[in-house]
Amino acid sequence: MTKPLSIPLMCHPSAKRPEALAVQVYRDLLEAVRTGRLGDGSRLPSSRAAAQALGLSRSTINLAYELLRAEGVIEVRQGAAPRVIAPVTGPPRKTAKAVRIPSQRGRQLGEVRRDSATAQALGRMAPGEPSEALFPADEWARALRRAARRQHGPVSSYATPHGLPELRRVLAGRLATDRGLAVDPEQILITTGTQGSLALAAQVLSDAGDRAALEDPGYPGARAAFLGAGLHLHAMPVDAEGARPDAVPKDTRLIYLTPSNQYPMGIRMSHARRVAFLNMAQQTGALILEDDYDSEFLWRGREIAALAAEASAGQVIYMGSASKVLMPALRLGWMVVPPDLVDPLRTAQRNLGLMANLHAQHALADMMHTGRYRAQLKRIARVYEGRGRALAQALSSLDGVSASQPDGGVQVTALFDGRLTEDAALAAVSAQGFQPAKLSDYCSDVANCGLVIGFADATPERIAAFVDALRAL
Amino acid sequence: MTKPLSIPLMCHPSAKRPEALAVQVYRDLLEAVRTGRLGDGSRLPSSRAAAQALGLSRSTINLAYELLRAEGVIEVRQGAAPRVIAPVTGPPRKTAKAVRIPSQRGRQLGEVRRDSATAQALGRMAPGEPSEALFPADEWARALRRAARRQHGPVSSYATPHGLPELRRVLAGRLATDRGLAVDPEQILITTGTQGSLALAAQVLSDAGDRAALEDPGYPGARAAFLGAGLHLHAMPVDAEGARPDAVPKDTRLIYLTPSNQYPMGIRMSHARRVAFLNMAQQTGALILEDDYDSEFLWRGREIAALAAEASAGQVIYMGSASKVLMPALRLGWMVVPPDLVDPLRTAQRNLGLMANLHAQHALADMMHTGRYRAQLKRIARVYEGRGRALAQALSSLDGVSASQPDGGVQVTALFDGRLTEDAALAAVSAQGFQPAKLSDYCSDVANCGLVIGFADATPERIAAFVDALRAL
Repeated sequence: MTKPLSIPLMCHPSAKRPEALAVQVYRDLLEAVRTGRLGDGSRLPSSRAAAQALGLSRSTINLAYELLRAEGVIEVRQGAAPRVIAPVTGPPRKTAKAVRIPSQRGRQLGEVRRDSATAQALGRMAPGEPSEALFPADEWARALRRAARRQHGPVSSYATPHGLPELRRVLAGRLATDRGLAVDPEQILITTGTQGSLALAAQVLSDAGDRAALEDPGYPGARAAFLGAGLHLHAMPVDAEGARPDAVPKDTRLIYLTPSNQYPMGIRMSHARRVAFLNMAQQTGALILEDDYDSEFLWRGREIAALAAEASAGQVIYMGSASKVLMPALRLGWMVVPPDLVDPLRTAQRNLGLMANLHAQHALADMMHTGRYRAQLKRIARVYEGRGRALAQALSSLDGVSASQPDGGVQVTALFDGRLTEDAALAAVSAQGFQPAKLSDYCSDVANCGLVIGFADATPERIAAFVDALRAL
Repeated sequence: MTKPLSIPLMCHPSAKRPEALAVQVYRDLLEAVRTGRLGDGSRLPSSRAAAQALGLSRSTINLAYELLRAEGVIEVRQGAAPRVIAPVTGPPRKTAKAVRIPSQRGRQLGEVRRDSATAQALGRMAPGEPSEALFPADEWARALRRAARRQHGPVSSYATPHGLPELRRVLAGRLATDRGLAVDPEQILITTGTQGSLALAAQVLSDAGDRAALEDPGYPGARAAFLGAGLHLHAMPVDAEGARPDAVPKDTRLIYLTPSNQYPMGIRMSHARRVAFLNMAQQTGALILEDDYDSEFLWRGREIAALAAEASAGQVIYMGSASKVLMPALRLGWMVVPPDLVDPLRTAQRNLGLMANLHAQHALADMMHTGRYRAQLKRIARVYEGRGRALAQALSSLDGVSASQPDGGVQVTALFDGRLTEDAALAAVSAQGFQPAKLSDYCSDVANCGLVIGFADATPERIAAFVDALRAL
């Protein structure tokens, strides 16, 4: 039998340490076992003796001993001193090795966005960003408050990963009236946003090594989701009618499109192209992922139907979100999927953890149901329309720069004719605090030269400062 | 030149149709082009004539024509009748083919949960579920309201997919005092919950074909996340000290553990096993995923340190969530990761769309900061402790059934000695409206026989009814 150790030599409880006193004693004793100061078979003092020696209460010591006992480090028997029964094997020393991503997939998933860092830059005139100042904070706060105070039943727990039934119902109504989509609420999945929808679709509807076709220039998030799923990419050039379908390989599994308002070029896809893509999907079995990211901001011909609304669109998956009308950080998006894909996508959504917050879903359903969502949309669309047109007009006044009048969205693309370079232009406007993106960051090659400029917060003063910075070049 | 067609033959605008009148006209004309009733080169009536013929306003017709023009279906020239310029190619007929999951990965991701359907059943005495009745609805509503009314700046947009800085800071403090984890807030990622954390870890830290080790019996969600990432599984049997590390293959990439309170067996891992797993990770380069799903409910020895708190735990990724203390549908979880993995995991989190709602993050930070989270925890832990112990005691009074006193969690596992079968027991309690899970649903084989029973809502009446139903067998 080993002699009981002097416990104050091992334990240094102090009010300055963050843990509770019992935890300090427990951890110190565990450390002593590890370093061999308390060997296997060592006896500890009784809780009364230890308490006295350390100036702590007996219940504190008892709790520390109980922690050690529960972990199998000591044995406590009635009438006997506690005894160390831990194996003498100490734990490994702290590793000095760096822990690196051990997988090809992880490197892919973890690096894609860096290629287009500027496209993710946040700040004034950054593309794709709505204005926080226009968020209906008071209305949302009231809706959230109501949602939080209700009893929700099973949807408050792990049920319905695919989303709140009330939201799916009201959304089905909106999609019918505003996007021409006749859809059963059961075909809708509520996700964490379009990026979540894209990741879910890519993971479920393809295998690594399959092919996906994307618009070029196009949305970097789609590229990231597809590369993260191990897909090979085919870049579809974008012309005045939208993406070109003619060179898409026959074995393409997924086709990503922004037909209502091409991102970032702002082009509406022609009817002929729509038909060509639908034909292709039907002939090859490909699935089309329609990202309707800012359909709700289409000022001119806002009522244009979604591609998924076509009679022949059985192979189109439709994606939308509340990111532009309300706020990206709500993390609310939706997918409309063919009936046969509903069950497997719901299960996969749960398995991938792509579920949206309950109260936010409730608040959105509430706003849609009462018409306040539509009112908000009208209010901000008017503001954005004015800002977008003012920006495009100001840009067009510059020599060597062309910018189409935007039909919607929250960004406009300025094309340079060769006298201006992206880097010089970006440097000039960055110096004034602006963060547009380089058009080449949206392209698979750098043939295009220009900037993608957000206008959600483009006040007249900012537009003037932005354009002046470019004019000075 | 084709003669202008009689427009009322093609257009049937009606207040009963859900779309706006202009959209109806647009869609009807588009359909006429498609079906060939309006051939290439056909002329449409002037907007004035069409308006008169259809009994609509001229601006409605102009809008419909503008939609067709914008899509390239018609050409509109000053002083001339609009002319159809769409290609004669019609769209494909509606496909009758069912759309099936086209990928192996999709079938995997979309089916795993069905194997353990009962484990996901929701309702009274279902395992893993907290009580909605104990959710601090009023406090949460106030915190959400405050969060929604603030201006958040860049975090309201696409920045910080890894979570609100305030939440990561206060969480780092809590993890230090309550779980012994000294962690930089920058090492924390806020996710959509533990399932999201598991999916993120599996996707980023492994390649398809790699191996993962899991506890058996164990959490079906981990199994689903790993199978969804294409991993091969190694089942680690669970004994009285926790999972057994001895047969884990050397090439194992990920090791999933619930060391504080094994799910669903309720066992606390011994110190010897902890050391063995940490040694193994260091020797083989494996990463340990520690799911601390209900550490906060450990009533006896609650202060036991997380495995990730060990000095040698450089290869442990720690996961927690607000699902048990507050509500699963908040979709709030967190991961603590080694410094080298922070950047790639953040990027991957964004690319996979695994972001949490901003206002919920804010409300949680608020509750933690003001001590109300801790108060809530104390309040419900007391209730759960009483219910868990009452249930275990009642179960133990049955012949042929054994149930350990739970140390925490929100479920207890009842083992049958062979006289009772899972199916008979489940049928008997289901008839009373209870939805526990079969223990075999958590196992790779069916050697174990018993039920996993939730007790978050286990009032004395329910416990009596539950046990009576089993006793009657």
